[in-house]
Amino acid sequence: MSTVTKTENPEASPRVKAVFDDIRTTRKSDFINNMWLYLAFDPDLLEKTWAEVKAVMATPSALDPLVKEMLYIAVSVTNGCSYCAHSHTAAAKAKGMTGEQHADLMRVIALAAKTNQLAVALQLPVDAAFDADRQS
Amino acid sequence: MSTVTKTENPEASPRVKAVFDDIRTTRKSDFINNMWLYLAFDPDLLEKTWAEVKAVMATPSALDPLVKEMLYIAVSVTNGCSYCAHSHTAAAKAKGMTGEQHADLMRVIALAAKTNQLAVALQLPVDAAFDADRQS
Amino acid sequence: MSTVTKTENPEASPRVKAVFDDIRTTRKSDFINNMWLYLAFDPDLLEKTWAEVKAVMATPSALDPLVKEMLYIAVSVTNGCSYCAHSHTAAAKAKGMTGEQHADLMRVIALAAKTNQLAVALQLPVDAAFDADRQS
Amino acid sequence: MSTVTKTENPEASPRVKAVFDDIRTTRKSDFINNMWLYLAFDPDLLEKTWAEVKAVMATPSALDPLVKEMLYIAVSVTNGCSYCAHSHTAAAKAKGMTGEQHADLMRVIALAAKTNQLAVALQLPVDAAFDADRQS
Amino acid sequence: MSTVTKTENPEASPRVKAVFDDIRTTRKSDFINNMWLYLAFDPDLLEKTWAEVKAVMATPSALDPLVKEMLYIAVSVTNGCSYCAHSHTAAAKAKGMTGEQHADLMRVIALAAKTNQLAVALQLPVDAAFDADRQS
Amino acid sequence: MSTVTKTENPEASPRVKAVFDDIRTTRKSDFINNMWLYLAFDPDLLEKTWAEVKAVMATPSALDPLVKEMLYIAVSVTNGCSYCAHSHTAAAKAKGMTGEQHADLMRVIALAAKTNQLAVALQLPVDAAFDADRQS
Repeated sequence: MSTVTKTENPEASPRVKAVFDDIRTTRKSDFINNMWLYLAFDPDLLEKTWAEVKAVMATPSALDPLVKEMLYIAVSVTNGCSYCAHSHTAAAKAKGMTGEQHADLMRVIALAAKTNQLAVALQLPVDAAFDADRQS
Repeated sequence: MSTVTKTENPEASPRVKAVFDDIRTTRKSDFINNMWLYLAFDPDLLEKTWAEVKAVMATPSALDPLVKEMLYIAVSVTNGCSYCAHSHTAAAKAKGMTGEQHADLMRVIALAAKTNQLAVALQLPVDAAFDADRQS
Repeated sequence: MSTVTKTENPEASPRVKAVFDDIRTTRKSDFINNMWLYLAFDPDLLEKTWAEVKAVMATPSALDPLVKEMLYIAVSVTNGCSYCAHSHTAAAKAKGMTGEQHADLMRVIALAAKTNQLAVALQLPVDAAFDADRQS
Repeated sequence: MSTVTKTENPEASPRVKAVFDDIRTTRKSDFINNMWLYLAFDPDLLEKTWAEVKAVMATPSALDPLVKEMLYIAVSVTNGCSYCAHSHTAAAKAKGMTGEQHADLMRVIALAAKTNQLAVALQLPVDAAFDADRQS
Repeated sequence: MSTVTKTENPEASPRVKAVFDDIRTTRKSDFINNMWLYLAFDPDLLEKTWAEVKAVMATPSALDPLVKEMLYIAVSVTNGCSYCAHSHTAAAKAKGMTGEQHADLMRVIALAAKTNQLAVALQLPVDAAFDADRQS
Repeated sequence: MSTVTKTENPEASPRVKAVFDDIRTTRKSDFINNMWLYLAFDPDLLEKTWAEVKAVMATPSALDPLVKEMLYIAVSVTNGCSYCAHSHTAAAKAKGMTGEQHADLMRVIALAAKTNQLAVALQLPVDAAFDADRQS
């Protein structure tokens, strides 16, 4: 079930084919997951979303690729995105996340959810020491 | 403003004093932030919360301390916890997060929020390839 | 699967039948979707929920019916409500939402989720110019 | 700061005055909090919102008034609503919530946030035993 | 589908067996639900999570066990946790939640979600009267 | 308070100045709000965020500019983003949102939050009729 119809034969569109080819080349794999198959309903949305994912996630940057996947998982879980929890956990494992790291990730994001709840419930005033403008 | 009254002279309670002393020792700093000052309204809640934060965040584990702080930020921001965004960003900087890493963290969590929204809006079916039971 | 038992033969209850009849009349359709079939476990909750949905969504008001459906989708997706994303996307299509409008809706709500994440992460102070009391 | 302008002299409107009078009578207090003062910008929205709050929260029902306030706090905190966390914690105290109950409420909602995070991260399949239709 | 592989024969691990035995004893039931079966991938995470759930939910405290289950439902629903909504609704029914109480719970958490939305949309300033420090 | 330091004299950077100039030209106003002033800490993040906001929000598309602002408000409120609720409500008013439309927007997003909560609490199965693949 989905809210848009999966395009039949999406690569008949040259714009879609170009994106799919780039996904295959970038990932060194023939597998195209549903995110891209369904986004093909609008080639502009497909192109721009892939371009941003490639720039942020598949381009060397200040953070390690596995760290970026784990951050993605943290956000996806907190947002309750089932598809994203699945796809980014699979991606993190493909990038080498060990069972110990996975369990540690669980511990950190579970604790964060818990103390977030306490801080909001108590409506804690922010300590002046945390103000970035004051620190500069 | 807060929803519990800040305890006056909280260290008059030996249980509270013991926790505050451990916070100061663990962090090598005299600063006690509002999270702990306000949790002092219930010594049991204070003790258990600090024990878990210490075990998960201040004990060597499979993930790097800075990575754990960045994961904490990712969850806190997604939950909209103002206090937590402030306190954990300050903690990440104290653990060496550079400006480039901070900007990269912003890029990843902003992109994750965006593609989460798309995946939920499209109600994407989860690819069978992402099933951990199938992978084993 | 659900957390309440679907009532067998719900229209045996005159209160439930009256609501279902009004749904059919208002929508000019015999289809009663699961929202109402399951809410039938409590006729008072069913009556009041339908009355509010009818008043807000099926009564002419300052906003166009299709715009109201798209706003409903925006909230439902952000809340991660799978049932609601499905039902209100179907409703928006029934009210004439085109593929281009659907893609545009995706672009706007995805961008909003992204910049929300940035604004919360940066803990931006609200500009005085945005204060409604100041504008009056 | 707010996004609507606070109405000056709101009780000049007979519809607003009638709602405010009913709030004062129902609560046996002259205090009108900002929720109602700002909703006065649209008398219809004010009337309907107050009518529902009165029906659900100020009318005897299957749940105890204090339990209902604590449930309200649980939802408000999880949604990150600062105003609501404040107003409903104050209401719960006015209805007799003790410090021990307050701390227990904190423990439960913090644990729930934590295990929610784990269940979503693990993408746990729902046990068949939890299906209400199966239980009937 | 899940993001971790379900451990085959988990009770071969003495640490896992000890937790499962305690779950069976505490609950007076042989049924072990998926939460614990999947958490068995990391015995430390399993032990600590169960210990906290037992301490908070299965130990007499200032709040009634059924009230605690309903609070758990309120948080779980607001977080959109499907597994948790199912498991805690089943638990609440097992602890005696009646149909009337269930419907009342629905009314309260639905209203809370609605007024949370209004309070955030209006960006209501918090009334000084709600400040706990001022009340003390 | 914020988590990044506001750059002093940001337009000393040619990249920042170019973005700010484009903001002023696009909006026909000299006012630069905090979103852009604080994002100046990383010119790349500033450029890309503004480029996307301009493409989606300030370029003619299938949806009306005011509708897009109201969708932005719906997402921002549901995410609890205080800054965004303020900035996009101000933007919607600048684009002509009337008081009646504002109240109607409140009614729709409040109702959506309420029925989202019910649908998640009941864990409603999605009706087959809502499946886009089936509709095609």
